Amino acid sequence: MFPSSPVTNHPHKSISRHFQPRSFIPLQQNILWKLEKGIVRNVTWHEDGTLVTLGVWGPGDIVGKAFSKIEPYEIECLTKVEVTIVPANEWYPLTEVLLAHLQQAEELMVIRSYKTVEIMLIKLLGWLAKKFGREVENGHLIDLRLTHQDIAEMLNSTRVTITRILTNLEERGLIDRLPLHRIVLKEEQIWHYEI
Amino acid sequence: MFPSSPVTNHPHKSISRHFQPRSFIPLQQNILWKLEKGIVRNVTWHEDGTLVTLGVWGPGDIVGKAFSKIEPYEIECLTKVEVTIVPANEWYPLTEVLLAHLQQAEELMVIRSYKTVEIMLIKLLGWLAKKFGREVENGHLIDLRLTHQDIAEMLNSTRVTITRILTNLEERGLIDRLPLHRIVLKEEQIWHYEI
Repeated sequence: MFPSSPVTNHPHKSISRHFQPRSFIPLQQNILWKLEKGIVRNVTWHEDGTLVTLGVWGPGDIVGKAFSKIEPYEIECLTKVEVTIVPANEWYPLTEVLLAHLQQAEELMVIRSYKTVEIMLIKLLGWLAKKFGREVENGHLIDLRLTHQDIAEMLNSTRVTITRILTNLEERGLIDRLPLHRIVLKEEQIWHYEI
Repeated sequence: MFPSSPVTNHPHKSISRHFQPRSFIPLQQNILWKLEKGIVRNVTWHEDGTLVTLGVWGPGDIVGKAFSKIEPYEIECLTKVEVTIVPANEWYPLTEVLLAHLQQAEELMVIRSYKTVEIMLIKLLGWLAKKFGREVENGHLIDLRLTHQDIAEMLNSTRVTITRILTNLEERGLIDRLPLHRIVLKEEQIWHYEI
């Protein structure tokens, strides 16, 4: 019944499971997963295969099929991921988890409501830096290894458009692009999150 | 402390309050409102005043500031509205209310993710008909008195674009437009909701 994946037994902790980048976390209806390490995205897609990002989650966040009625629906690992099962008797305070999901959904709605993809992208980078980034010497580092396609799928845009805008932001000195798709937000007007 | 508005006392029911179209429902942090009649939308707006629709709610739905951390935030009546206060000890099952809000947020995200405003609008009309519409002789009636501007604000589009597409859909025989901004979805491919 349990899909095969490496299992580690932590003393005093729930059993943890590990997933590789681009793999999917199993979607049993009655299981909630707590993210211990790594980043996942909840996605759905149109009939033509166009992917739509419904959420992005990191360490400490709780994800599961129970929170969504969207079909199709998958939880995809963007990085290496370690999760533990949240036992059913520890689902509380579920209202807080649901509020976090609702809050993120609204934040993504607002980010995607701007008139140009450039403004959406600047808002998204600030939001990602606030949620998942860390301070470095010359700004805020987003180390999520997001491809331009991943970013396009967060903004309902295209890879070509995202590449063009990122190149432009770099030329203007607002961001640095490092190997492995890491991005540093250099200027306060970018990393200061305000949607 | 209580803002003035007409108050009606129903026996065996909570006190109900009435609001006119385009008025705002008070946002006390600890009050949830149950919609008895009418339609409201939750909105926020950008610094330039552009309105963003976060949700649309009708009879039986529960709304309140407690569900959102977005600022600014208002609950605006689209029609005449009657609400009752949900007493704090009757907030349960709050998880179901939260799931309904999360579900709608995801549905709106999917509707807005299509590549053209025409497809978004067709999906939105189907969604509105399913949620708020009723069957009539020649199709499904959406009687929400939504202006083209209201619809534009649900799709992050412009009034001019919405007017152009609605005119085109009517010319193609897919919808009828009636006085008072009512819309009839005539063809199954339109009113059959599938996002």
